[in-house]
Amino acid sequence: MNVIDIINKTKKSYELSDSEINQLVNGYTTGKITDYQMSAWLMAVCLNGLSERETLSLTTAMRDSGETLDFSGLGRITADKHSTGGVGDKTSLIIAPVVASCSVAMPKMSGRGLGHTGGTIDKLESINGYRTDICGSEFFDIVRTTGFSIISQSGNLCPADKKIYSLRNATATVDSIPLICASIMSKKLALNADCILLDVKCGSGAFMKTREDALRLAELMEKTGKSAGKKCRAVVTDMDSPLGNNIGNALEVKEAVEILQGKYKGRLYNLCMELSAYILELAGKGDYKKCYEMAENAVSSGLALETFRKTVSLHGGDCRICDDVSLLPQAKYSYRIKAVHDMKILAVNSEEIGMTSLILGAGRQTKNDVIDMSAGIVMNCSVGDCVSVDYTIMTLYSSTVSDFSEASFRAVNALKFCRI
Amino acid sequence: MNVIDIINKTKKSYELSDSEINQLVNGYTTGKITDYQMSAWLMAVCLNGLSERETLSLTTAMRDSGETLDFSGLGRITADKHSTGGVGDKTSLIIAPVVASCSVAMPKMSGRGLGHTGGTIDKLESINGYRTDICGSEFFDIVRTTGFSIISQSGNLCPADKKIYSLRNATATVDSIPLICASIMSKKLALNADCILLDVKCGSGAFMKTREDALRLAELMEKTGKSAGKKCRAVVTDMDSPLGNNIGNALEVKEAVEILQGKYKGRLYNLCMELSAYILELAGKGDYKKCYEMAENAVSSGLALETFRKTVSLHGGDCRICDDVSLLPQAKYSYRIKAVHDMKILAVNSEEIGMTSLILGAGRQTKNDVIDMSAGIVMNCSVGDCVSVDYTIMTLYSSTVSDFSEASFRAVNALKFCRI
Repeated sequence: MNVIDIINKTKKSYELSDSEINQLVNGYTTGKITDYQMSAWLMAVCLNGLSERETLSLTTAMRDSGETLDFSGLGRITADKHSTGGVGDKTSLIIAPVVASCSVAMPKMSGRGLGHTGGTIDKLESINGYRTDICGSEFFDIVRTTGFSIISQSGNLCPADKKIYSLRNATATVDSIPLICASIMSKKLALNADCILLDVKCGSGAFMKTREDALRLAELMEKTGKSAGKKCRAVVTDMDSPLGNNIGNALEVKEAVEILQGKYKGRLYNLCMELSAYILELAGKGDYKKCYEMAENAVSSGLALETFRKTVSLHGGDCRICDDVSLLPQAKYSYRIKAVHDMKILAVNSEEIGMTSLILGAGRQTKNDVIDMSAGIVMNCSVGDCVSVDYTIMTLYSSTVSDFSEASFRAVNALKFCRI
Repeated sequence: MNVIDIINKTKKSYELSDSEINQLVNGYTTGKITDYQMSAWLMAVCLNGLSERETLSLTTAMRDSGETLDFSGLGRITADKHSTGGVGDKTSLIIAPVVASCSVAMPKMSGRGLGHTGGTIDKLESINGYRTDICGSEFFDIVRTTGFSIISQSGNLCPADKKIYSLRNATATVDSIPLICASIMSKKLALNADCILLDVKCGSGAFMKTREDALRLAELMEKTGKSAGKKCRAVVTDMDSPLGNNIGNALEVKEAVEILQGKYKGRLYNLCMELSAYILELAGKGDYKKCYEMAENAVSSGLALETFRKTVSLHGGDCRICDDVSLLPQAKYSYRIKAVHDMKILAVNSEEIGMTSLILGAGRQTKNDVIDMSAGIVMNCSVGDCVSVDYTIMTLYSSTVSDFSEASFRAVNALKFCRI
């Protein structure tokens, strides 16, 4: 069947066969199908959707466009975790060492941040010396030694996804649940861990703004993962307000280390324990309650922090940060945002906080922007807190921006409060 | 507004402003907007449609992408006619000289055939010597002298349409009523005649298969033409069975000449008189009844044939064909399809007849195919006729194909009949 007939079928809401979807993905990856044909098809998918079978077929075709990893040589069950991205989401930095400490290996590939959301790879690179672009065999060796490693996406995995993703960005075809599912799941399936936990963020700071969309994406990804032979679970978690107190690369590593040190127990700690428990449960380590306790023990015993330290060290990173977080990049300038009267914090808009962080230099407006690792925000209160006049609600940090007028305006705008 | 936001608006069914549509058309014509962005937008239009105002705006933006002609110097009212294409449709060859004989000038640009439908330019080129690619001033001079001229599309008119049309062909975005309207009407408005008659073909041999779609296209084109300041009328006519008895380039010129000679009066003659009357009415030559009589007089008086002869001659064509049609290209081979028993002809599928003609060499499967001018079909019966065993239902002609097995199979397949 020729490509025009394939586009036409999706346009007319007929289901494509597996072989037609394979032809489309392979043809596009090898250059036989043009960008303009693919973008027409992608728009038809955005407007007409794909069936679950078609989504599975697209996902596996994209997986098979490149290399698939094999961790069977580890002799240990492996798990992977994906978050659809949010503001202040440093859960991977905590969950991976926790899970690894419970004998479930986590070989993980992560992305960089773009726009108002951060990326795990950028955060790790704020650790002096940490190399995220190591080769496959070194990746494998670190996972075998410590139980986890986090590296940047390799060029050999899912070339089809890479090509399709940049086309979607240029053609307003990003917001399609089957396409988002195929993009995420093809990479997860190519990495090929035994268990996959998917954390779909929902709320003002997330890509999925409504609970309905988040649930649809979660359900579709879970089904796709299971149909492709994986132990798979998807959960929807809140991203209406930022996750944790710190936003910004080095600031988030600092917060992750402090959680692993057992210093803080709050919303972020609880979420990390929950997600770790789900992964351990998928990996057959017991029921949810038992797995939750295992995760908590990994932190309280100090084992998770030790695992983190070893992995950082094997990646060439300065592991002294595990004892002294002041060795992380420090900002030259800071600015306090204070309460102008006694007030109650009703909401913190995480997209606005993400934009503030971007303005401070912590993120990328375009792909090639250089990040200020020290920049970001430390929140000094949570939703529901009552604070007195002059209390420091948050502190903004930057080494590149000394005039805080734009960032502070944006930060104040992120707050919803009432006078008390 | 950037192009991604424009695509996104159409995708989400928001109306675009005139300036956004201009930006899109100009950006694409000048290469600032890529093929893959345009094709994503075109697919969004196919699935979400455009409003009448957006369609008008798209049409005028495409018109303004190139040159606009000006026939005001003729001192005569001008008319243009467009047919959406069908099998055996040689009406332009008859209507143009008829209308020109009634003092309404018809400067006309036509296309070439592709697939199962023929093109007026190919038909005219079957006349030995006829030049269809003459320059603008010669075109203007011929129209001034004889009242009509038919040439091929000029490169300076509607470059945006040319670029968008070939992209639509490659991306399954052809069958959208607003896009079809904008493509046809932008060219009509760039030619810039005072009156425009649009003949929307409907049925098995036409692009519009249903009466509902044909009426929607007709209504939209008429409104667009009127909003752009033209006297404009659109009619829907039948293309379930081929128009006239002859299909194929020289064979159709022969039939047109014979109609102009006053030899035949049937469905084709009647349609030509009707369409001519509509044009004359638009041009203010009187009411429909009076205009119909004027058109008939132009044929019966021999004036229309004389006008045709003069135009052919000024185009360098052998005008002796007006007296002796045997001077047109003659096929080397022929094949008769005979009735195998007494039968009644219930239907003749014009798409299948068009495909038969294509197989015989009369059309193009791809853009660069060379046409056999002598090839085609002469129907020897009409829908509703009863014929006896051994009666020749039709004759197939070709100079390039001597084995008629495929063509005759297809031709028989085009017939729906019952034994009597």
